[in-house]
Amino acid sequence: MEKQKSMEMGKQQQQQQPEEEESSHYNRGGLNNLPPLRCIVKLGGAAITCKHEIEKTNEENLRTVSSQLRQAMMTESSSAKVSGMDWSKGLGNLEVPTADDFEKNPMLNAGNFVIVHGAGSFGHFQASRSGVHKGGLQLPFVKAGFVATRISVTSLNLEIVRALAREGIPSVGMSPFACGWSTWERNIAHADISQLSKTIDCGFVPVLHGDAVFDDLQGCTILSGDVIIRHLAQLLHPKYVVFLTDVLGVYDRPPQDSNAVLLKEIAVDEDGSWSIVKPILETNKVEIRVASHDTTGGMATKISEAAMIAKLGIDVYIVKAGTSHSLRALTGEITRSIPDDWLGTVIRFSKQTNATD
Amino acid sequence: MEKQKSMEMGKQQQQQQPEEEESSHYNRGGLNNLPPLRCIVKLGGAAITCKHEIEKTNEENLRTVSSQLRQAMMTESSSAKVSGMDWSKGLGNLEVPTADDFEKNPMLNAGNFVIVHGAGSFGHFQASRSGVHKGGLQLPFVKAGFVATRISVTSLNLEIVRALAREGIPSVGMSPFACGWSTWERNIAHADISQLSKTIDCGFVPVLHGDAVFDDLQGCTILSGDVIIRHLAQLLHPKYVVFLTDVLGVYDRPPQDSNAVLLKEIAVDEDGSWSIVKPILETNKVEIRVASHDTTGGMATKISEAAMIAKLGIDVYIVKAGTSHSLRALTGEITRSIPDDWLGTVIRFSKQTNATD
Repeated sequence: MEKQKSMEMGKQQQQQQPEEEESSHYNRGGLNNLPPLRCIVKLGGAAITCKHEIEKTNEENLRTVSSQLRQAMMTESSSAKVSGMDWSKGLGNLEVPTADDFEKNPMLNAGNFVIVHGAGSFGHFQASRSGVHKGGLQLPFVKAGFVATRISVTSLNLEIVRALAREGIPSVGMSPFACGWSTWERNIAHADISQLSKTIDCGFVPVLHGDAVFDDLQGCTILSGDVIIRHLAQLLHPKYVVFLTDVLGVYDRPPQDSNAVLLKEIAVDEDGSWSIVKPILETNKVEIRVASHDTTGGMATKISEAAMIAKLGIDVYIVKAGTSHSLRALTGEITRSIPDDWLGTVIRFSKQTNATD
Repeated sequence: MEKQKSMEMGKQQQQQQPEEEESSHYNRGGLNNLPPLRCIVKLGGAAITCKHEIEKTNEENLRTVSSQLRQAMMTESSSAKVSGMDWSKGLGNLEVPTADDFEKNPMLNAGNFVIVHGAGSFGHFQASRSGVHKGGLQLPFVKAGFVATRISVTSLNLEIVRALAREGIPSVGMSPFACGWSTWERNIAHADISQLSKTIDCGFVPVLHGDAVFDDLQGCTILSGDVIIRHLAQLLHPKYVVFLTDVLGVYDRPPQDSNAVLLKEIAVDEDGSWSIVKPILETNKVEIRVASHDTTGGMATKISEAAMIAKLGIDVYIVKAGTSHSLRALTGEITRSIPDDWLGTVIRFSKQTNATD
């Protein structure tokens, strides 16, 4: 198989790589005793919120995604009755389950998942209006924007935790800001994951999110969900990472373009450059679009982050949320060989790809 | 002034004192450089939620309390226009303030306050039903209750942060669980406050809350807002602490009793015992009631915690939220001498009281 290499893309990706990474103050806590993490899932903001309506979740998508996550975590039959873990009022006439309900149900293999979500139509407006991503916390308007952004993204986090809990997933919200995560020139500088590790160890599913955080150089910034995912992948080394988005995967040009081709497999080289393995295209140029309201980089960041995860030897799947394709990716069904009827993008380390050629 | 000492109460209070405190793993971060903290405020659950209706905030009280907090934090005139920091939709036709709005406004002296709130009608139902406070995280029902409790208390936290932000207070929610706080036999064992300190340093008002947390001995428990307050008082040594409740202060018996007498001043001795200084009562017996649904101890815990704070030389005021009395306590107007027309309870270290006798 001939590989088409785009050095242009490789360069772009390398520029975004944080140079001070080696000197970051990672705290790995008691990680040596951790069971292997199965999967880190990114719930893309575009997949779970209504893009064009400020602060509105896409409830149908969120319900389907939560249900698929439950199926992926199930150790036994998926036909068992779901005992929800959101016991708040305002959920209609749902009865709060009893101890017996939980004893009878097959336990979820929940300890093996971490969920990170983006902001979608939450937070972006507040952050971009006040310039939180550009720093300047001494300015009253930036400080106010920091508060407004956190209110918006934590309200989305709560909605997602509740949707997961209703499906019986033992989810707990963990804000990077409250966890004390901070950045240096917008790259992660400090991220103690000891509480996160303990939470996974205890069988919970931590739910993190893109957040407004302190930046040691510029005062504050927005830490995107994609950067969080890469960071966690480096430290926790899951078997695979799934990005759930609102399109089938990565295309060679904007997916709205009728000529857009879905890239089914992308290989990442040791030097960080990418090449499209499947399908074989006439041109190897991929257009990268960044939405104007997106303070965290959009698709360019997503592909760069995914490539850096793949370089660690971790398979990355980019799939459309709430489809049969996303369910197959979440359950880990898509392994070395990609079924012809599966639609999505796999990003893998090229060394592994070569080994199976 | 003759002091009436109740050794019975003193004993009770000493029993509740955590014996392993000295061996706790406090992390004081870069605290030596912190400006002195002005005030830690407890928003009592009973004052800001509707006691008899599950998961309902008392919006009017919450608005008044937020407004009084703003007045207490003001460095200049309180007549300036409020520029809100909750820019979410669903707030009617409120316009999002501009950078100019914030530049024109007097800055709040916000860096000097920390707010901790209780759960009230949030969380208690979920925690007591599943027994989260008694531990046993390996049981599916307790694990589910842990999830349900956190959903409930974090939703209240979000509502309070938003109410404060609407008043222009730069409030940021910080969940003790996400901060990595944990307990040992229900007393705080680990509580890194470096992020909290940084947040105060940057001029924000951290908003913490009673939370479900991991317990090193019994798996999990409920960490009450009152225990958090004492812990923070020990580490941050504020000038004063204000407990906002739903009654005027501490009474010698249940306040519903028509013969109940408001205790205006309580002195705490070095051995941890208390004595009522004002008014002089015929009997020194104080009835302690604990509501059956209260998993965190109720008034008994509150007085014990307040006494332990007072022992540090920090004045503690227990006042009714949303009254002129609470405003005077929050602004720091009630100092050494207590005005006759002020209604509330002051708890002070007896050594200081003796000095002014």
